[in-house]
Amino acid sequence: MSNRQQKHKEHIQAFSPFRHRMHEIIFEAETPLGKWFDIALMFLIIVSVLAVAIESLPGLSENTKHALYVLEWILTIFFTLEYVMRLYVVYRPIKYATSFYGVVDLLSIIPTYLSLFILHSNSLMIIRALRLLRVFRIFKLAAYTQSGNFLVKAIKESIPKIVFFLFFILITVCVFGSVMYLIEGGREDSAFDSIPKSIYWAIVTITTVGYGDISPTTGLGQFIASFMMIIGYAIIAVPTGIVTSEMVTGRKEPDEVQEVLAEACMYCMKEGHESDAIHCKYCGEELNPVHNRIDNKEDAL
Amino acid sequence: MSNRQQKHKEHIQAFSPFRHRMHEIIFEAETPLGKWFDIALMFLIIVSVLAVAIESLPGLSENTKHALYVLEWILTIFFTLEYVMRLYVVYRPIKYATSFYGVVDLLSIIPTYLSLFILHSNSLMIIRALRLLRVFRIFKLAAYTQSGNFLVKAIKESIPKIVFFLFFILITVCVFGSVMYLIEGGREDSAFDSIPKSIYWAIVTITTVGYGDISPTTGLGQFIASFMMIIGYAIIAVPTGIVTSEMVTGRKEPDEVQEVLAEACMYCMKEGHESDAIHCKYCGEELNPVHNRIDNKEDAL
Amino acid sequence: MSNRQQKHKEHIQAFSPFRHRMHEIIFEAETPLGKWFDIALMFLIIVSVLAVAIESLPGLSENTKHALYVLEWILTIFFTLEYVMRLYVVYRPIKYATSFYGVVDLLSIIPTYLSLFILHSNSLMIIRALRLLRVFRIFKLAAYTQSGNFLVKAIKESIPKIVFFLFFILITVCVFGSVMYLIEGGREDSAFDSIPKSIYWAIVTITTVGYGDISPTTGLGQFIASFMMIIGYAIIAVPTGIVTSEMVTGRKEPDEVQEVLAEACMYCMKEGHESDAIHCKYCGEELNPVHNRIDNKEDAL
Amino acid sequence: MSNRQQKHKEHIQAFSPFRHRMHEIIFEAETPLGKWFDIALMFLIIVSVLAVAIESLPGLSENTKHALYVLEWILTIFFTLEYVMRLYVVYRPIKYATSFYGVVDLLSIIPTYLSLFILHSNSLMIIRALRLLRVFRIFKLAAYTQSGNFLVKAIKESIPKIVFFLFFILITVCVFGSVMYLIEGGREDSAFDSIPKSIYWAIVTITTVGYGDISPTTGLGQFIASFMMIIGYAIIAVPTGIVTSEMVTGRKEPDEVQEVLAEACMYCMKEGHESDAIHCKYCGEELNPVHNRIDNKEDAL
Repeated sequence: MSNRQQKHKEHIQAFSPFRHRMHEIIFEAETPLGKWFDIALMFLIIVSVLAVAIESLPGLSENTKHALYVLEWILTIFFTLEYVMRLYVVYRPIKYATSFYGVVDLLSIIPTYLSLFILHSNSLMIIRALRLLRVFRIFKLAAYTQSGNFLVKAIKESIPKIVFFLFFILITVCVFGSVMYLIEGGREDSAFDSIPKSIYWAIVTITTVGYGDISPTTGLGQFIASFMMIIGYAIIAVPTGIVTSEMVTGRKEPDEVQEVLAEACMYCMKEGHESDAIHCKYCGEELNPVHNRIDNKEDAL
Repeated sequence: MSNRQQKHKEHIQAFSPFRHRMHEIIFEAETPLGKWFDIALMFLIIVSVLAVAIESLPGLSENTKHALYVLEWILTIFFTLEYVMRLYVVYRPIKYATSFYGVVDLLSIIPTYLSLFILHSNSLMIIRALRLLRVFRIFKLAAYTQSGNFLVKAIKESIPKIVFFLFFILITVCVFGSVMYLIEGGREDSAFDSIPKSIYWAIVTITTVGYGDISPTTGLGQFIASFMMIIGYAIIAVPTGIVTSEMVTGRKEPDEVQEVLAEACMYCMKEGHESDAIHCKYCGEELNPVHNRIDNKEDAL
Repeated sequence: MSNRQQKHKEHIQAFSPFRHRMHEIIFEAETPLGKWFDIALMFLIIVSVLAVAIESLPGLSENTKHALYVLEWILTIFFTLEYVMRLYVVYRPIKYATSFYGVVDLLSIIPTYLSLFILHSNSLMIIRALRLLRVFRIFKLAAYTQSGNFLVKAIKESIPKIVFFLFFILITVCVFGSVMYLIEGGREDSAFDSIPKSIYWAIVTITTVGYGDISPTTGLGQFIASFMMIIGYAIIAVPTGIVTSEMVTGRKEPDEVQEVLAEACMYCMKEGHESDAIHCKYCGEELNPVHNRIDNKEDAL
Repeated sequence: MSNRQQKHKEHIQAFSPFRHRMHEIIFEAETPLGKWFDIALMFLIIVSVLAVAIESLPGLSENTKHALYVLEWILTIFFTLEYVMRLYVVYRPIKYATSFYGVVDLLSIIPTYLSLFILHSNSLMIIRALRLLRVFRIFKLAAYTQSGNFLVKAIKESIPKIVFFLFFILITVCVFGSVMYLIEGGREDSAFDSIPKSIYWAIVTITTVGYGDISPTTGLGQFIASFMMIIGYAIIAVPTGIVTSEMVTGRKEPDEVQEVLAEACMYCMKEGHESDAIHCKYCGEELNPVHNRIDNKEDAL
């Protein structure tokens, strides 16, 4: 064990039982209290997201606006306290603060404070919706069962192939977009007035979205657009085929699936430890030293 | 057997043969008469749905309107009688009245009566279309064969995974919608005039529907929209992969498939009993006590 | 062999060698001449379809119109002769005349004659495009190889399941369409001005086509539309899953695949006979009696 | 070995070591320098494509236009030198010049020179984007691993079946397009003003793009359009099923996969040689005679 790790371990063991307990409630979803905390948090985040969305509606009365303003500040103060608490109880504050959830947690409280100085910046609060991704952690035990597990694995393994496929699509839309710019762009009042816009049109078309804000008007343009649509229609089969074949194949190896702990390592913040793990498989530190300490005490009695 | 069950059984055994026979015709599709009843009912429902649809067309003559009005009332009275009959012959009227089909049956007759008091409420009659779902019961014997059976099973098993996936999509559209509101919303006459509307746009885009009633006009907006479309194009592979892999895998276990009775338990209204079942697998009551009683009588002769 | 069959056989054996030869050329794609005839026919059909399409363009010069008019008549007369020839050389004229291709062949020559009496009826000539489906017969030998065979089988087996699925979709769009009519229809100038039109909108939406000619404008309408799009996005997985699972499963039983003759039975017009078949598997008549007669002659020499 | 081949071999062996080395850098991605050259080239191509795209934007300042003009010429001169170098170091200049990449390389420099004579022709420079397809060669080692290899194979095997499917779609859109022309085309100001345009609409609809620039307005037209959308929605399952079943099946035969060289045969320009190949499997010539010669020299020392 390195000197830094040793020092870090001492730092954690010096935590008060209260701090350990708060860590369990805030960061884990294993205990009933921890689960309730997460569910309450989800609820408040949803309320907050709805408030931001409603506030943006035109034609609200002054009273509603005021109520939403107050609600916004109450929730922001709560989330600020929660963020400070998270920093206080976490075993590695810097690791947490720079993790995905740590950054999202911070970003979701800043906009309200910013709105004191900059107008409309509170719309940015919608980033709070990203905090809802934590829901996957709460229901992790359910999702990481036999089937859920192979699903996530199949999607992960599909990503590099799909990225390659999207790169190919990107070249295709660049070429088609430019061709359409040459064909349609010359005319007065044509919507194809630049190559980037024509590429935008090509993406709208090949993905079969088809807004219709830009659409070919010449015969030749319509012919090339038709050709492109049919290509788009046929190649949508490729990503589907990739994901499906990964899933079907992944399924056929139903190797022993371990139940997964809904608990992150308190040293490196990584999740996904199996239920019989005592040490973190990423950093080697003990998982749940508090529990273990308590268990040991009970053993000693 | 509990006291309540005992009482219920006595209640059913006290049914007149006529009532038993009507039960068989109305609720079952096993006998020729029962099948004809169901087919005739389907036909009347389709006529009724078409009548409601036609009535809503602008520019009808007074005569047509009157004819449709009469037809509507005739059908409603028939459906009302049918509903009363169902309540009379069913073994557990409350269970039926609160089941999905029971509620739909009731809701499909109320609007006509309501239209005496409230204008235009008869458009709600279209809810009768839901009664057509019964068609699956009529053709159940055909559909629940080897392949149909695993199909329904595969779809059912896919639903929780797809719900998780849709939750992820929902967070994505909230974030993208709000970002577009910030980018596009500031301009005069922009269609992105509130966050809910921007989220609506994001859903229209990610599902590749693309009405074009709202579409980005700034370069940055179009860039982000392009990004989103490509994401939508790639991730449509996920639900498809889920369902397909369920189907392919489900198929590989063609375990013994039992023929399924087109007959509901007359105590708990549940369906899907295997052809050799004598007792309901859900509530334990005897299936078809009338048939059995008759059979027993015949045995006794 | 029944009396009618006996009579029919005698009728065929009375055919002149020329008639037998023409039958081979026109109806079969086995011999080089038969293949060339089919390819030439395909070419003329494409020319004819293009001519009809070009004729409909606005702003053509009088000269072009006249040239197309002449071309149209030349091709029609050729197709008429071909049709008469088909009737003459086929072994069962009535069977051919009432078969799919027979009806298409007739329908594709009528519009030109009709245009002498009724204006614009020659646009119906486009039905000639359906004759191009014969291309599958020409290339049948290639397509009916191991993989092509199981593909057609997989699609055929998927159809009943997909029809059931589409029935479910139909009920869904009826209900959603009517709900939208109630929500959006009341307003002045709303595009949802009748239930059929609202159902049309629902189909446009659930299939993710999304023209945008009709789109919800109220908040509630947009909310329900969003809900519907997400449903449409998720359930597109169902038909895909059905077809794919059929294909994957069908593939796993690569039982002995027989080469298939590109030749129809000359008695019952049915195709798909295996290469070693001597008698039609549908009607029991001898396949290719001419070839056999010639072969027998050669054997006799 | 033929006389021509003999002559060609002598021609290559007469190459200076510098020429051999340049060949390695420019045409291969095996050596570090060769890889860096390819990456730098990709970067310059992207810069060039972006420059062309930006130049097409309306409302650029004169300074920006001038800077882009200078950049364009610098890059074109560099690409010209690169093209000349390729011709110089390649073992079969004509083979290269007429290969896909050779033609693309030439086409991507011509437009700039053409723009001296013809206005706006420099938009054609966007064809440079096609050069980015070379990226697959750089990352080939990664892509051609076990999974990537079977992916490309699965897609290739799907193509003939999908082409057949698209042919079927083409006939369908022709027939539906013409029917819609007959139904909708007669009215004043109808968007269905010719058969080709109606076919374009049918393609826009069946592929679920749905711009909405052309959409049916009559009841019958909307009914037929609905029918077509539902068909399009159901049959998208076919290409997906084809590709997926190819992928799932291809996967099940994970036969020994050879590492693939990122190096083209210098005689016939073909790629995809296995890592232990000494001779090109397409033309039989020695692969990498320079390496071998050097190796032999080292052996001799």
